[in-house]
Amino acid sequence: MIRVAVFGAAGYIGGEVLRLLLGHPETEVTAAVSSRFPGKRVDSVHPNLRSATDLTFCDAEQVTECDVVLLATPHRSAMALVRQWASRTELLIDLSGDFRLRDADAYKRYYGVAHEAPELLDSFVPGIPELHRDELRTARLISVPGCMATAGLLALRPPAARRLIASRVLVDGRTGSSGSGATAGEGNLHAERSGAMRVFAPVAHRHEAEIAQHTGLDVRMTATGVEAVRGVQVVCHTELAPGADHRAVRAAYREAYSDEPFIRMVSHKRGVYRYPEPKILLGSNFCDIGHAADEGSDRLVVIAALDNLVKGGAGNAVQCLNVRMGWPESYGLSFPGLHPM
Amino acid sequence: MIRVAVFGAAGYIGGEVLRLLLGHPETEVTAAVSSRFPGKRVDSVHPNLRSATDLTFCDAEQVTECDVVLLATPHRSAMALVRQWASRTELLIDLSGDFRLRDADAYKRYYGVAHEAPELLDSFVPGIPELHRDELRTARLISVPGCMATAGLLALRPPAARRLIASRVLVDGRTGSSGSGATAGEGNLHAERSGAMRVFAPVAHRHEAEIAQHTGLDVRMTATGVEAVRGVQVVCHTELAPGADHRAVRAAYREAYSDEPFIRMVSHKRGVYRYPEPKILLGSNFCDIGHAADEGSDRLVVIAALDNLVKGGAGNAVQCLNVRMGWPESYGLSFPGLHPM
Amino acid sequence: MIRVAVFGAAGYIGGEVLRLLLGHPETEVTAAVSSRFPGKRVDSVHPNLRSATDLTFCDAEQVTECDVVLLATPHRSAMALVRQWASRTELLIDLSGDFRLRDADAYKRYYGVAHEAPELLDSFVPGIPELHRDELRTARLISVPGCMATAGLLALRPPAARRLIASRVLVDGRTGSSGSGATAGEGNLHAERSGAMRVFAPVAHRHEAEIAQHTGLDVRMTATGVEAVRGVQVVCHTELAPGADHRAVRAAYREAYSDEPFIRMVSHKRGVYRYPEPKILLGSNFCDIGHAADEGSDRLVVIAALDNLVKGGAGNAVQCLNVRMGWPESYGLSFPGLHPM
Amino acid sequence: MIRVAVFGAAGYIGGEVLRLLLGHPETEVTAAVSSRFPGKRVDSVHPNLRSATDLTFCDAEQVTECDVVLLATPHRSAMALVRQWASRTELLIDLSGDFRLRDADAYKRYYGVAHEAPELLDSFVPGIPELHRDELRTARLISVPGCMATAGLLALRPPAARRLIASRVLVDGRTGSSGSGATAGEGNLHAERSGAMRVFAPVAHRHEAEIAQHTGLDVRMTATGVEAVRGVQVVCHTELAPGADHRAVRAAYREAYSDEPFIRMVSHKRGVYRYPEPKILLGSNFCDIGHAADEGSDRLVVIAALDNLVKGGAGNAVQCLNVRMGWPESYGLSFPGLHPM
Repeated sequence: MIRVAVFGAAGYIGGEVLRLLLGHPETEVTAAVSSRFPGKRVDSVHPNLRSATDLTFCDAEQVTECDVVLLATPHRSAMALVRQWASRTELLIDLSGDFRLRDADAYKRYYGVAHEAPELLDSFVPGIPELHRDELRTARLISVPGCMATAGLLALRPPAARRLIASRVLVDGRTGSSGSGATAGEGNLHAERSGAMRVFAPVAHRHEAEIAQHTGLDVRMTATGVEAVRGVQVVCHTELAPGADHRAVRAAYREAYSDEPFIRMVSHKRGVYRYPEPKILLGSNFCDIGHAADEGSDRLVVIAALDNLVKGGAGNAVQCLNVRMGWPESYGLSFPGLHPM
Repeated sequence: MIRVAVFGAAGYIGGEVLRLLLGHPETEVTAAVSSRFPGKRVDSVHPNLRSATDLTFCDAEQVTECDVVLLATPHRSAMALVRQWASRTELLIDLSGDFRLRDADAYKRYYGVAHEAPELLDSFVPGIPELHRDELRTARLISVPGCMATAGLLALRPPAARRLIASRVLVDGRTGSSGSGATAGEGNLHAERSGAMRVFAPVAHRHEAEIAQHTGLDVRMTATGVEAVRGVQVVCHTELAPGADHRAVRAAYREAYSDEPFIRMVSHKRGVYRYPEPKILLGSNFCDIGHAADEGSDRLVVIAALDNLVKGGAGNAVQCLNVRMGWPESYGLSFPGLHPM
Repeated sequence: MIRVAVFGAAGYIGGEVLRLLLGHPETEVTAAVSSRFPGKRVDSVHPNLRSATDLTFCDAEQVTECDVVLLATPHRSAMALVRQWASRTELLIDLSGDFRLRDADAYKRYYGVAHEAPELLDSFVPGIPELHRDELRTARLISVPGCMATAGLLALRPPAARRLIASRVLVDGRTGSSGSGATAGEGNLHAERSGAMRVFAPVAHRHEAEIAQHTGLDVRMTATGVEAVRGVQVVCHTELAPGADHRAVRAAYREAYSDEPFIRMVSHKRGVYRYPEPKILLGSNFCDIGHAADEGSDRLVVIAALDNLVKGGAGNAVQCLNVRMGWPESYGLSFPGLHPM
Repeated sequence: MIRVAVFGAAGYIGGEVLRLLLGHPETEVTAAVSSRFPGKRVDSVHPNLRSATDLTFCDAEQVTECDVVLLATPHRSAMALVRQWASRTELLIDLSGDFRLRDADAYKRYYGVAHEAPELLDSFVPGIPELHRDELRTARLISVPGCMATAGLLALRPPAARRLIASRVLVDGRTGSSGSGATAGEGNLHAERSGAMRVFAPVAHRHEAEIAQHTGLDVRMTATGVEAVRGVQVVCHTELAPGADHRAVRAAYREAYSDEPFIRMVSHKRGVYRYPEPKILLGSNFCDIGHAADEGSDRLVVIAALDNLVKGGAGNAVQCLNVRMGWPESYGLSFPGLHPM
């Protein structure tokens, strides 16, 4: 069994990492670090893990030898932990935003502070099995992208890579409340957040930089919080490049994703669930992608959906771990999602 | 115009008091007191009041002369304000729990602290127009009951007063999240509170003492938080008293409530909304009451629903004010509720 | 009192028309027509109207003389009613889609059938007080725009009219479930519709034609159903025209809307409700509009929100009626919305 | 691999049976019967099964040889299928209400029609592993109890069997919308069902007869639909029997359930999830049970929660199948539930 230490284990992503690793046939969680709740039972914070574990949270200082370090800590606080652990562990997977952007200036612009370990930025392999599977097999440092970024880059990469779409793309992201974390604030009080259609980032959402980095496109993003706890959806508005057609777009997706275990193409003419929708993906590691053409115009709309805490975070990290360790990619990730929901 | 000062104006009940008074033809809000947000615009906290008012919150010390003082402050903090204002104003209406129970010992038991002004308890008239309309006409101190208490006592009083039901009643209360106030906490974070069926008081909820006080019954209460922002429903489980029958129960309600402007009897054999349900009452001052008999048994189930912030708080206070001032009882309270919702 | 006959009174828009007219000081509902429920009490379908009315639904044939005819019937079925009533009533207000597009070909394209009364299309005044107030004062036929169309055209008209924005605009509309009406179907079953982020019109939503017609822009629309019963939000993505700047945009809105009773400009740097959001508008006739600029780029994002059944339908119709009759514009429309919600 | 034919496979319970059997290491679904959708792909109705199966629905006549027949058809329609299949298959598991009550008269009373196969009622073993594990090992006919019935009987059996509680119990059940099935109706339209607190059975809910049958108690039930798609909670109000105390109650639960794989005792003094709550159980086969005592009184409140489609239906059926086949009881049922949710 591979021994994994999870930092930030009391957060929502951290809890999801624990759930997945506890159900994984090859991993053992040897430390669940929480600065807020040291000594408290893990299942007192994550009640779905009752009977699944007797672990208690520990302090960062109590973490001893382990094979893998997984960071699910807030943005900005991962940098120090990476410095501390990068050389002491076989594999470090960071789920924060700190090592997602290759460019320290972009980090400053989007995160508002200077990067503390710019020299390490190049050492991280992006945690995107669909794009970096080979590099992940030998990676020592992995940075898992943001939830809406994952949806957006998986949605746009195939046609972008084949230059089938215009360079400028508008990404409209919608997200549930778990994306803002487990810390109470005025804006995520139930009475305020419930039933919201809240444009919290009309322009310049952080994830646009990540999507741009992985697709080469000029990405402009708007983000809205809608009524949901889990789940993210992006609607990407773009146009066919001169000379491209919708058939080529379909072929690009088929080519890129037909063998991918966690990507499903979803565009139906009939039925209730015609395009990707997060609610049937909750708990699963799938990213569903669909696209629609505007007859008689060059407009192309690409839609992607995923569970922000799974394929948009913890599940993606576990998939990367599986790739890195040479295990079947679906280990620990077999839950298909629920219907109705 | 009657000048009203509202304390606790940044809370949810306080905001609803403001909304109702701003739409009231005879009142003027001269002070909106908030210890948290002095100097801030009222509509920055209550965005539904944008364009309805230019008021800013003020400190308690800034409140000058006024005709009516309305306290929408948290439990325990109203006692000091009552001492301070009782003699300085024509009318004081307290929406907190501090002067609801006539018995200081019961206050200690249910609120966990000793009462600071026990000598004033008897001076308060209960803010229940349906039961105390005459006393309210000349009241100087009014204490508005709790939200689930209002639903429960209005549901049970008619058959209880006529001794048509057994003395022991079980009241199952369900409430939306606004009942726990505008202050963020772990339990009312959207991701935690959303979709809840949370039994937060399996036994001994405070409001059972109020219902007992106003009905003379032995009341046992259980309270559950369900998915909703506004709205309270109580389901009262009781039995017919020996010799009583369901016809007498119906007559009791008719007699008690047929002239009440804000009570509606709702028990239908068909349709979607057969029994009282809060969602169609949101924003309105109605309390809907229905009852059902178990054929061939003595079981009687009484159901009541209301908007916890209106008939369960601010609206009831305004209705009391209308009674006290001799105005039409529906002044400021004419909104009927929405469907669908 | 003006006598109003409401057709389609059992639908969601029809119910809202009834609610507003029953609370209106100058109107009397003399007929509530429903082909599905003739003879049934109105409040058995619209339970919020219990105690507000004793009306029963009637058949279309039973409608006798009246001053105003209000059609809240489904698209396609209003055409015959307009033919029948246009000459028999002082004023007809149509809330369906049948007379919104001036161009019969566009109607065919977006509604899938040929228009049955193309000769009447030009006789209708658009039911948009903000754009057509003067014409409305003498109108005999009024066609109220669609819910997302209203939000979109009010959002875009001021900068479009002053040529401050690019001609091509992308409108991302989000809507609650009441927009699809009161008739049960597979897709609006609670278990299927709940928690949805459902892109039901990735391209070519009908309302894009209306927004285009009223702004002169080339509008492309995408529509998504999100978790809500009431409420519509549009996010309009556009760019400044060459030479235009954000200050001119702000001035355009100020000039167009500073005297409008039901438009509020909402763009805040801080707070929970920084941009327009429908949940605090439910039941109210407001359309909130906000805009955001992307620093260092020409991108402009305009956001608008309203209650689809009120400003997006019934409330707008009543506002038009008020204008037409020379009554104060806010008659029957004074409800400000609720917070929290 | 054991071959299973699922009747009623397009319903919500049927879909959940498919999900669980498709993830089960020892079963193969050889027929998914739907009278509504023969020939249609299973994943067009249950979109969570995309990529999990290529099955299409078939007609009942197309079902050939199989080892197990699983009926997830509506009440009343299972009787004919049982007659037809009882002798043709090694094992039949019925999820409808048709064979839950041992008494044909009770069936008539609660289901409104005469039972068509009363002679078979005694042949069914109740599908409750916690109470009938030994009989299930050799059962040929199994009848899985109703969702709220399962919660209620598991909650009450331990103290009832040891005569620690009064014979009369009041069960307050709350349920999500999936309990009323996948067929659209006026009452489960999203706009009507959303945010509901709908007392649909103030007295005499069917499941009370089942709880009575399995506990020997005199059970009175009230059922309310609350805002949720999945999930059931029962709150059982009772009293200690003379001479009993709360310690004995705790011991009774410990004795009955400490080795049960899918029952967890949940009663905490602190934290957000102090008592059983369905939202963290969605998709899982757990039934959480907690109890609370009223200090200084004999009142006992027992709370149970489960996912109505899993432990309240399909999961319980799979657990029975596992018991019957001698497989590990958790086969196919290892999903722990999600947090947050």
